[in-house]
Amino acid sequence: MENKIYFDRSAKQFEAKKNLLAKIKTESKSIGYYNLPNQDISEILEFSKNFDESIENIVVLGIGGSSLGSKAIYEFLKPIKTPKRKLFFFESTDPLNIADTLKQLDIKKTHFLIISKSGGTVETISIFKYIYAPNPNKENYTFITDKGSNLDKFAEKLGSKRFYLPENVGGRFSVLSVVGLIPLALCGIDIKELLQGAKEVSNSFFTDGLLKDPLLDKAYYYANNHDVYNINCIFAYSETLKYFTEWYVQLWGESLGKNQRHASCNVGLTPIGLIGPKDQHSFLQLIMEGKRDKSVTFIKLAKFEHEMYVPPITLEHLEALDTLNNIAFHDLINMQCDSVIEALKNEKKIPLDEIVLPAVNASSIGALMYYYELLTSLTGELLDVNTYDQPGVEAGKIILKEKLETY
Amino acid sequence: MENKIYFDRSAKQFEAKKNLLAKIKTESKSIGYYNLPNQDISEILEFSKNFDESIENIVVLGIGGSSLGSKAIYEFLKPIKTPKRKLFFFESTDPLNIADTLKQLDIKKTHFLIISKSGGTVETISIFKYIYAPNPNKENYTFITDKGSNLDKFAEKLGSKRFYLPENVGGRFSVLSVVGLIPLALCGIDIKELLQGAKEVSNSFFTDGLLKDPLLDKAYYYANNHDVYNINCIFAYSETLKYFTEWYVQLWGESLGKNQRHASCNVGLTPIGLIGPKDQHSFLQLIMEGKRDKSVTFIKLAKFEHEMYVPPITLEHLEALDTLNNIAFHDLINMQCDSVIEALKNEKKIPLDEIVLPAVNASSIGALMYYYELLTSLTGELLDVNTYDQPGVEAGKIILKEKLETY
Repeated sequence: MENKIYFDRSAKQFEAKKNLLAKIKTESKSIGYYNLPNQDISEILEFSKNFDESIENIVVLGIGGSSLGSKAIYEFLKPIKTPKRKLFFFESTDPLNIADTLKQLDIKKTHFLIISKSGGTVETISIFKYIYAPNPNKENYTFITDKGSNLDKFAEKLGSKRFYLPENVGGRFSVLSVVGLIPLALCGIDIKELLQGAKEVSNSFFTDGLLKDPLLDKAYYYANNHDVYNINCIFAYSETLKYFTEWYVQLWGESLGKNQRHASCNVGLTPIGLIGPKDQHSFLQLIMEGKRDKSVTFIKLAKFEHEMYVPPITLEHLEALDTLNNIAFHDLINMQCDSVIEALKNEKKIPLDEIVLPAVNASSIGALMYYYELLTSLTGELLDVNTYDQPGVEAGKIILKEKLETY
Repeated sequence: MENKIYFDRSAKQFEAKKNLLAKIKTESKSIGYYNLPNQDISEILEFSKNFDESIENIVVLGIGGSSLGSKAIYEFLKPIKTPKRKLFFFESTDPLNIADTLKQLDIKKTHFLIISKSGGTVETISIFKYIYAPNPNKENYTFITDKGSNLDKFAEKLGSKRFYLPENVGGRFSVLSVVGLIPLALCGIDIKELLQGAKEVSNSFFTDGLLKDPLLDKAYYYANNHDVYNINCIFAYSETLKYFTEWYVQLWGESLGKNQRHASCNVGLTPIGLIGPKDQHSFLQLIMEGKRDKSVTFIKLAKFEHEMYVPPITLEHLEALDTLNNIAFHDLINMQCDSVIEALKNEKKIPLDEIVLPAVNASSIGALMYYYELLTSLTGELLDVNTYDQPGVEAGKIILKEKLETY
C-alpha cells in the first residue's frame, strides 16, 4: 500500500520522531498485537481443514472487538469470491434483530463461535443462553476467550473446543489473533495472506522505513492539532470498505478518547467513516464548507477485479452525459475520488492524505488494518493516553448490573 | 413521540424564541417540505394498487436524498412485517457493488424507479444506462424527477410513467414526497400512517405547542454552543434505526455545514449515528472520557412488538449472569440504554436528551423524521446559513466533468 500526504509535514521534529519511534519499539515488546503477523497459525489451519463439511453457516456471538474486525475482512472480500461458508453476527440485544438473524439460519448446518475476552459480556451471554437452551450440543460451539476466564471454565466443563487470546491483546487490537482468524479461516479466507499483508506494513515501518515517515508525520499532525482538528474522517471509495470504517471507528475512538495520563484532561479524536461516491451526496458539503475541524484520509482501490463498462448509448435529452459512455466503472469511481481530492485541495485548512490499496485481496486489508493499529498506537502515545484500556465504559455496566439485580 | 431534555434549558430567551418561531412560520409558506404531511396521495395509492402483481423487486436508482429516506423507513419496518415487495438500491459506481446487487435480481420480476431531481446525476445515469441497454422496455421503469428536467423529457419520449417532485422540496427533505412514498407504497408500507405521524409532529410544533419547546430549546442550544459542541450524536437503541441515522447524517451535515449568509464564516455541526448497545463497545468510551465536544440524543423504542426472553438456565461458572434469566430482551436493551444515560448524567458537560418512540410502525418513523427536519430548519436559521442548498459539492462535479471530457 501507498500513502501520499498533502498537508504540511514538518521536518523540524526529527528528534521528537526518533524518540517516539524508540518508545513504540519498547512498547512492542509488551503489547501483544505488534507481533501477531509472526504468530504460528498451524493449529488454526488444522482446525479449519478438519472442520465438519456439512456446516454452511458460521455465527459469531460477540460484540465490539470480538466482531468488528472479522466482519470488516469478510465483507471486504465477499464480493470478489463467494465464501466457503456464510458468516453471521449477533451483536445486539434488540429482539427484532435476533429474531431476524435466526430466521436466516438452519441450526443443523450452523456452528457458533462464542467470543468474549472476559467471558462476562451481557449481550453475548444472554444470546448464547437463548440459543443454547434448546440446542445443548457441545459440538455446535467453539469458545474463544481468555485462558482461565469463567467462560473458559464453562466450555471446559461442556467439553467444547476452546481457543485462547494471546496475552496483552485487547479486543479492538485482536482482529489478527484467533478472534478474527478462526471465523475467517472457516469461511475459506486466506489468513496466511492476511498476515503477510500486515507483516509487510510492520517491516515497512520498523525495518526498511518506507511507511515510517507517513505514519510518524500523520500521528504528529493529528496529536499536535487535536484541539483544532478534533474529527478524523476516512473517505473510502468502495462499498467493500464500509465495515472496515466501522472497525476503524472503534479502534480510533475507544483508544484515543481518554483522560490524559499526566494532565488528566479529557482528550479524544472523533473518527468518522464515509463511503464514496455515496457520501459525496451527504457529508461532503460539510467537509467543503463547514467548520475547519476535520482531517480527511481518502482510501482508493487501484484494482477492483471486475470489468464493467457504461454502455455507449445515447439517451435523448441526456446527450450531455454521453461523456460517460464506454468508461469502466472502476475508472469512474476513482475519477470521482480524484475530483473530490482536487476540489478539497483548493480549499484552505483541510488536512488531506490518500491511501492506495493495490487490490481487493486478503493482503491489502491485512496491511490496511495493521497500518491503522500502528497509527493509533503512535497517536495515543503523543496524546499521552493509555491507548489500550477503556475505563469509561465501566460506569454504565455497574448501573446495569444494579438494575438487573433489582429487576 | 416524547422528548425529554437533560441539559440546561435557558428560560431567558423567550423573545428570541418567539422571533425564531415567527421566522419559521414565514419560511413554511415557501419551503415545500413543511406541507408534505397534508398532500393528496390518491394518485400514489392508485398507482400502487394497480401495480403489476408479478413484480417482486423494486429497485431505486438514486443516491443521497433520492435513496436515504426510503431506505431508512423500509429497514425500520422490515423486521416487524415482511414487505409486499423487496426494495433494493443502487447507490454507488463501485463495480463490485453493482455486480453483487444485480446478482440478487430476477430482471423479469423487477421494476426500476429512476430518481433524480436534476436528472443529471452521474451515478444514477451511468447505472441506468448499464441496466437499460439490455432491457429497453419502457414498462420496466418509472421516473421521479423535476417537471421539465432532461430526465423528464427522456422519460416522456420513452413513454414511461413519471412522477414529479413538488416545488421547493430539496432532495434531503424529500422523503415524505413521491421520492419516498412511491417506493414505500409499492412495498406495501402504509404511507397514510407515515404522513399521519409527521402531521402529529407538525401540529405539536405549530399548533398545540407540545413539541415546540423541546425543539426550540434544542435548536438554541446547538446553535449557541456550535463552536464548543461541534458534534451531535444520535445514539439509537435498536438495529432497526441504523439507516435512519444515515438519513440524519445527510440531513444535518449537508444542511448546516455552510458559509454563513452574513459573516461568511465556515460553520457546521457534525452528525454521528450510533446504534446501541453495539456502540457501547465502540464509541461510548470516547463520549465518556473524550473531549467535551459532543451532544448526545438517545432514541428508544417503548415497544418492540416482539416477545423474547432469556431462558432461565444456569451455566456452570457463569452463575453471576443468572440475573439475566427471564428478562425480556426488549427490557434488557432499554435498561442498557437507561444505564448509559445515567452514567453520562454523572459526567460533566455532556448535553443529553432522550426521544421515546411509541412503537415500530410507520407513524413513529414519520414523526421522527419530520421532527428532525424541523430541528434542522430551526438550527440552520439560528446559524445563519441557507439550510436548503449545497453549493460546496459543485466544485468536485465540475472537476469530474472536465476529467470525463478528456478521458
